[in-house]
Amino acid sequence: MKKLAVLVLVAVVCLLTAAQDDPLRIIVIGAHPDDCESRAAGSAALWVQMGHKVKFVSVTNGDAGHQAKGGGALAKIRHAEALESGKILGVEYEILDNHDAELMPTLENRKQIIRLIREWKADVVISHRPNDYHPDHRYTGILVQDAAYLVIVPNIVPDCPPLENNPVFLYSQDRFQKPNPFSPDIVVGIDKVMDKKIRSLAAHESQMFEWLAWTAHRLDEVPEGKEERLKWLADSRFGREVSPNIREALIKWYGEDAGSKFKYAEAFEICEFGSYPDEEDILRLFPMIGK
Amino acid sequence: MKKLAVLVLVAVVCLLTAAQDDPLRIIVIGAHPDDCESRAAGSAALWVQMGHKVKFVSVTNGDAGHQAKGGGALAKIRHAEALESGKILGVEYEILDNHDAELMPTLENRKQIIRLIREWKADVVISHRPNDYHPDHRYTGILVQDAAYLVIVPNIVPDCPPLENNPVFLYSQDRFQKPNPFSPDIVVGIDKVMDKKIRSLAAHESQMFEWLAWTAHRLDEVPEGKEERLKWLADSRFGREVSPNIREALIKWYGEDAGSKFKYAEAFEICEFGSYPDEEDILRLFPMIGK
Amino acid sequence: MKKLAVLVLVAVVCLLTAAQDDPLRIIVIGAHPDDCESRAAGSAALWVQMGHKVKFVSVTNGDAGHQAKGGGALAKIRHAEALESGKILGVEYEILDNHDAELMPTLENRKQIIRLIREWKADVVISHRPNDYHPDHRYTGILVQDAAYLVIVPNIVPDCPPLENNPVFLYSQDRFQKPNPFSPDIVVGIDKVMDKKIRSLAAHESQMFEWLAWTAHRLDEVPEGKEERLKWLADSRFGREVSPNIREALIKWYGEDAGSKFKYAEAFEICEFGSYPDEEDILRLFPMIGK
Amino acid sequence: MKKLAVLVLVAVVCLLTAAQDDPLRIIVIGAHPDDCESRAAGSAALWVQMGHKVKFVSVTNGDAGHQAKGGGALAKIRHAEALESGKILGVEYEILDNHDAELMPTLENRKQIIRLIREWKADVVISHRPNDYHPDHRYTGILVQDAAYLVIVPNIVPDCPPLENNPVFLYSQDRFQKPNPFSPDIVVGIDKVMDKKIRSLAAHESQMFEWLAWTAHRLDEVPEGKEERLKWLADSRFGREVSPNIREALIKWYGEDAGSKFKYAEAFEICEFGSYPDEEDILRLFPMIGK
Amino acid sequence: MKKLAVLVLVAVVCLLTAAQDDPLRIIVIGAHPDDCESRAAGSAALWVQMGHKVKFVSVTNGDAGHQAKGGGALAKIRHAEALESGKILGVEYEILDNHDAELMPTLENRKQIIRLIREWKADVVISHRPNDYHPDHRYTGILVQDAAYLVIVPNIVPDCPPLENNPVFLYSQDRFQKPNPFSPDIVVGIDKVMDKKIRSLAAHESQMFEWLAWTAHRLDEVPEGKEERLKWLADSRFGREVSPNIREALIKWYGEDAGSKFKYAEAFEICEFGSYPDEEDILRLFPMIGK
Amino acid sequence: MKKLAVLVLVAVVCLLTAAQDDPLRIIVIGAHPDDCESRAAGSAALWVQMGHKVKFVSVTNGDAGHQAKGGGALAKIRHAEALESGKILGVEYEILDNHDAELMPTLENRKQIIRLIREWKADVVISHRPNDYHPDHRYTGILVQDAAYLVIVPNIVPDCPPLENNPVFLYSQDRFQKPNPFSPDIVVGIDKVMDKKIRSLAAHESQMFEWLAWTAHRLDEVPEGKEERLKWLADSRFGREVSPNIREALIKWYGEDAGSKFKYAEAFEICEFGSYPDEEDILRLFPMIGK
Repeated sequence: MKKLAVLVLVAVVCLLTAAQDDPLRIIVIGAHPDDCESRAAGSAALWVQMGHKVKFVSVTNGDAGHQAKGGGALAKIRHAEALESGKILGVEYEILDNHDAELMPTLENRKQIIRLIREWKADVVISHRPNDYHPDHRYTGILVQDAAYLVIVPNIVPDCPPLENNPVFLYSQDRFQKPNPFSPDIVVGIDKVMDKKIRSLAAHESQMFEWLAWTAHRLDEVPEGKEERLKWLADSRFGREVSPNIREALIKWYGEDAGSKFKYAEAFEICEFGSYPDEEDILRLFPMIGK
Repeated sequence: MKKLAVLVLVAVVCLLTAAQDDPLRIIVIGAHPDDCESRAAGSAALWVQMGHKVKFVSVTNGDAGHQAKGGGALAKIRHAEALESGKILGVEYEILDNHDAELMPTLENRKQIIRLIREWKADVVISHRPNDYHPDHRYTGILVQDAAYLVIVPNIVPDCPPLENNPVFLYSQDRFQKPNPFSPDIVVGIDKVMDKKIRSLAAHESQMFEWLAWTAHRLDEVPEGKEERLKWLADSRFGREVSPNIREALIKWYGEDAGSKFKYAEAFEICEFGSYPDEEDILRLFPMIGK
Repeated sequence: MKKLAVLVLVAVVCLLTAAQDDPLRIIVIGAHPDDCESRAAGSAALWVQMGHKVKFVSVTNGDAGHQAKGGGALAKIRHAEALESGKILGVEYEILDNHDAELMPTLENRKQIIRLIREWKADVVISHRPNDYHPDHRYTGILVQDAAYLVIVPNIVPDCPPLENNPVFLYSQDRFQKPNPFSPDIVVGIDKVMDKKIRSLAAHESQMFEWLAWTAHRLDEVPEGKEERLKWLADSRFGREVSPNIREALIKWYGEDAGSKFKYAEAFEICEFGSYPDEEDILRLFPMIGK
Repeated sequence: MKKLAVLVLVAVVCLLTAAQDDPLRIIVIGAHPDDCESRAAGSAALWVQMGHKVKFVSVTNGDAGHQAKGGGALAKIRHAEALESGKILGVEYEILDNHDAELMPTLENRKQIIRLIREWKADVVISHRPNDYHPDHRYTGILVQDAAYLVIVPNIVPDCPPLENNPVFLYSQDRFQKPNPFSPDIVVGIDKVMDKKIRSLAAHESQMFEWLAWTAHRLDEVPEGKEERLKWLADSRFGREVSPNIREALIKWYGEDAGSKFKYAEAFEICEFGSYPDEEDILRLFPMIGK
Repeated sequence: MKKLAVLVLVAVVCLLTAAQDDPLRIIVIGAHPDDCESRAAGSAALWVQMGHKVKFVSVTNGDAGHQAKGGGALAKIRHAEALESGKILGVEYEILDNHDAELMPTLENRKQIIRLIREWKADVVISHRPNDYHPDHRYTGILVQDAAYLVIVPNIVPDCPPLENNPVFLYSQDRFQKPNPFSPDIVVGIDKVMDKKIRSLAAHESQMFEWLAWTAHRLDEVPEGKEERLKWLADSRFGREVSPNIREALIKWYGEDAGSKFKYAEAFEICEFGSYPDEEDILRLFPMIGK
Repeated sequence: MKKLAVLVLVAVVCLLTAAQDDPLRIIVIGAHPDDCESRAAGSAALWVQMGHKVKFVSVTNGDAGHQAKGGGALAKIRHAEALESGKILGVEYEILDNHDAELMPTLENRKQIIRLIREWKADVVISHRPNDYHPDHRYTGILVQDAAYLVIVPNIVPDCPPLENNPVFLYSQDRFQKPNPFSPDIVVGIDKVMDKKIRSLAAHESQMFEWLAWTAHRLDEVPEGKEERLKWLADSRFGREVSPNIREALIKWYGEDAGSKFKYAEAFEICEFGSYPDEEDILRLFPMIGK
């Protein structure tokens, strides 16, 4: 028994060392402060725990989504909340100065995205599909798609060295069926870090407990205490059952046993415009799978 | 027999009263003057007959689609024709001052659409799919999609109060199969008002009897007399058989009996970016169904 | 004494009647809520008192100029303040939904300005010079210049009937010398309505007593009481001496005697892209001059 | 006497030969069909008579300036009129497909202008000042300014060989005083070709006898007959006296005697962003001066 | 044997004559110099051999895709290579001056495409699907889609006569599955001209042997000799097996026998926004099929 | 004599100490790599010698101005040259990724400029006048003007704290007379650092010895040796006599004696849209004057 423990310890140390020597680099690009968390905070926390590097980007500054505040005043609140969330997860955070609800797929924005992906030396890029419910999500998805491949072209954003290889580009999960449904090509069980995910989301107070509660006509339900709020958040928005197709994918990647037990998961679809990973690539890029 | 008539009368009166107390509010947003009519004039007429409120919007001013006229001179003709059509149907009509054949999905246009939907306090918004044959149709579809959800965000178009709930957004029918075919989620039998629909279309003289006839190389077939023109229009462009999938949907919504008899129908697909109506919602929003 | 009162009464009645028969129509187009007031509230008040029609337009919604608030939340405050100011002066007020500090001379904005000028059937259009200190002022000036002449072209904004004649376009006063100094072609003595001007400005509380006080590092000087605020405003910002060239112009238009006495004045420069008024035109369009 | 005539003849022949060997190349870039004619048709006719090459460009297609027609239908009329005018003057004519009254100083338009100037291998480029009464004139002026210098930069419009030297850029005459008045640096007496100029203008029937007459409220004065129309045009719009500063410049360039006699002239100001010609350059580029 | 040869000769002559009397006109619109070749050089060569007219357009000037060169300097190289390729294939070639990697679906670009299609009097237009890997491919696809139908609207690009009928629009083959896979509606066996296709591709030296080799990390494999290069190109990039669905289509169009033998093919999907060809139309437009 | 030396030493030490305690912060914003040097390298060197902080910004990446190279390849050369120049002068250098010869006054660019000025906490901002010969210079001038005042508005670029006071904005010298000539409000004698200025310019090899020499048709005159090149540069481009109005200003600021002796100077005009400095302010901001 002791031997096993030692072996495990050695394995973990090796893994961490390996990772620290040559950590994976993941960049998650969401439309608003809190989008990266909703879609990938669990996976991010797992990567970070294994010594890898994760960066969250919000392409808009979140200056519109609120029932009573707005503009730069709101953007500053959103900025502080994002930094707080980043601390909880151990990820770097950057917010671009684009108006919320007014994002357009301009060349300027495309070049900003290219620069961010290159500077992060990303192995994996995660963003929205171009068919999500909010126009900012859709145009963020398009901007990230439009950065794929161009990140390796040296004449674009020439002062920033191009990547040697097109990274793997992934879409985060959504529920939309048209023109084609989300395909859970990769699924990560996040039960171990679900608490951390909820806390990172809760750091976005003006979103979780003000704006989103307001749009759901549930503002009066929001509790006052910090712990109560975490619970309310977990219950009301992020406690959904894993759907059958996600369960199927969990079992594919984690085996029947482990895959059947996860209560929480994050799923990703492979974007065809990045490098297309095979199973081995996926297991290398998602070292938490199976663990 | 008399009793039944009385009951029917009472029912109708109740319905009308109910409707007048709290009428449904529908906004149809087409690319050109005549697009709302082609796709939804029948349903509009039925709503109006039941006391509900319908508004037609043309996002372009129609200043290009003609073989001999153009520009502001044509736009004025199109404007007058649209007002005439609106009178026939009992709907409000508004034409935005955007060049025909040059519509782009700009923020300015998006905000105009948001304002229109809000000011109309729309329960239902109907527009084109983003994969129709004319670029103006596609970009109208995108603009309306991009207004969905944002109509409830108070910081956008701040001088115009936001809606409390995202309306139901619907696509009008088209024949295109890529990337996915139109899905007739809701179908309305319009035989009772088909005559009114044809007359509303015929009000667009410069379209029906000039431009569209010209593009179809059938200008010489167009008759002179008003009644002959109505007949020609009904026969040549709008007399198509109901297709099998529409028939199936008619039967679903109207029952085998009634559904099998309709000669004319208008179909709508539910857009996933609006509120998603269940069957009960649909029957409330389409009170003519089953009647 | 009584006789004089009667005469005055008769004169006033005549004047009002004349005006009401065929009142002048003036539109003042400023960049922000409060710009029309700073530059032309006195003249506006005088026109209104004589029965003429004045409209104030703010081309931006004022959603940026504040040290602590912003966005739609601020825009709504600015909107309410503008309506209050309009009530004090008796002018109509309209605020366009453009971001403050981000105004660009786009075609969409140009067309909005054309529409506003036409719908107001303006005899006189007043705006900023294109060389004022704030980019929004400069681009407002350019947009209004770019509307000149086009207001008479029917193919532009075709659903809105063109004016028969290009109105008189005027620039409001500024202090800038490059590339050429402001030329006080027309000057209006406003002593009689200076109090009203100050009150209209004071209606813009979030500007006068918050933002502008803050940028001037004088926030702590702002008094609490309403009357004290009016006095502070009059003293601190709008109590400047009439400059020698304005004095000269006052004497030209009002005569040595009256012209020498005015403490307050508003000056306007004739824009060469509108109709060029001769002295007789000016006296007709500025009926308060000499009175 | 006869000897002189022979000498003159020889001189003329030499000149023509020289010109044909190596003719000057002038490009005039106006905003609308007829702007090149109003400003430079006389000079163009003189250049052409001496064997030089002149091209007229209209940057917009003239599809808006008319009281009853518009759009592509009007653009086609304008196109035909321009070709007719070009035939009269012996100049090449090109009309760019930009909407009238909507010209913007975009990069696309700038590049089109660069290409045109290069392909014409222009020695002289003539356009509007950026402070003329019509926004299209102003933005044409800006576009042409923005092409100056860049016409020699090979990386811009790379498929079109750059000019070796920045041409001489000139502004055509206007009456505007702000921010600085037009300066008649070069003046050409055009009496000999005034008739041709009027005929070239008259070729723009829809402008001269319809639109401009309409905006001047003189539509009912326009005569029917062709000759009467030429006379009316000459009298009503182009028969203005030469102003004192133009007279002064005529005398400078043609001498007291000849300079005092000209009834008609065209004046040009040197744009500082092109090559700056000295007097010798001017006499080489304007070989009609003094003749 | 001789008889057969004569018959063949006669057939060929007839065919050529027919073609020359009324040759088909095809325009292929790719994003970069070499895209038309990769996707359609074989079909182009076959059309040209039968006397039909083919034009290749590159919507960008190719000024970015290179590891060491760039800008106008690179664009000129690309231009020369394209002309060389065009000579090999016997097609006309045009390159638009848009920056590589920065193509946007602007109105200006749309109008350029409309003009090109009209001026070529195209029967068939071939371009990218809007879901290919490079943003320039996607936006080229969108621009061409947006030109469909508008090519018959006279008010658009009014100086260029509209086509009488919407051409057949086709997408060239790609491997992408989302949102829907490429559908090989039409397939052309190109074995007979495969050599010519490779040579036309090899003319794009800076692409085939420099840039694409570099991005594939295979720069050191590129041979020096001309013949070796052709072989390397054929082997490394264009020697892929025909996939099962393409094989199936070959058999459909060429019969079991011939269809089973082709080693090389080019496939096209029918775009729904153009005229929809039936089988007879396809055989008329693709006269090489079955031959 | 020794005493004097000690006094001088003390003075210098004091000055340096003072400066290091609270150094002035100057940002020079030019259109291209080398523009800051041409206009302000001498003043920059003097500021740096006194312990103040200077940053040079090039708003374009210089990827067009060359006869043989271009694009990203050229931009990288320009970038390296700029860094070299910055080292020589002791200034920080930043190059924005905008295409050379294609700069437009967009909001995105304006916001970048605002951010740069704020992050530098600039006391003085120096840029081009909006009427210089190159469109990039003009639009850089406009962008910097449009940043003035907005640098103190917190809602703009909200993640970057606003400046407390609008800096002093200055235009660098040019020779253009229209619409108004450059006014040398502040003049700095730079003889002491002229050598450093020439060396900083010479660091821009691809500009000074390639592109500018080429445009001047003097490429064959450029010497090979480093020292010879410095001399050639000094003689051919920067050895111009000080003009009378600059001499006058030198005498005003330095006194008759010193002012008469300077061979080299840099002049600046005060922009009216920044804080307006009085003489005392100028002497504080330009501590090298009089020394």
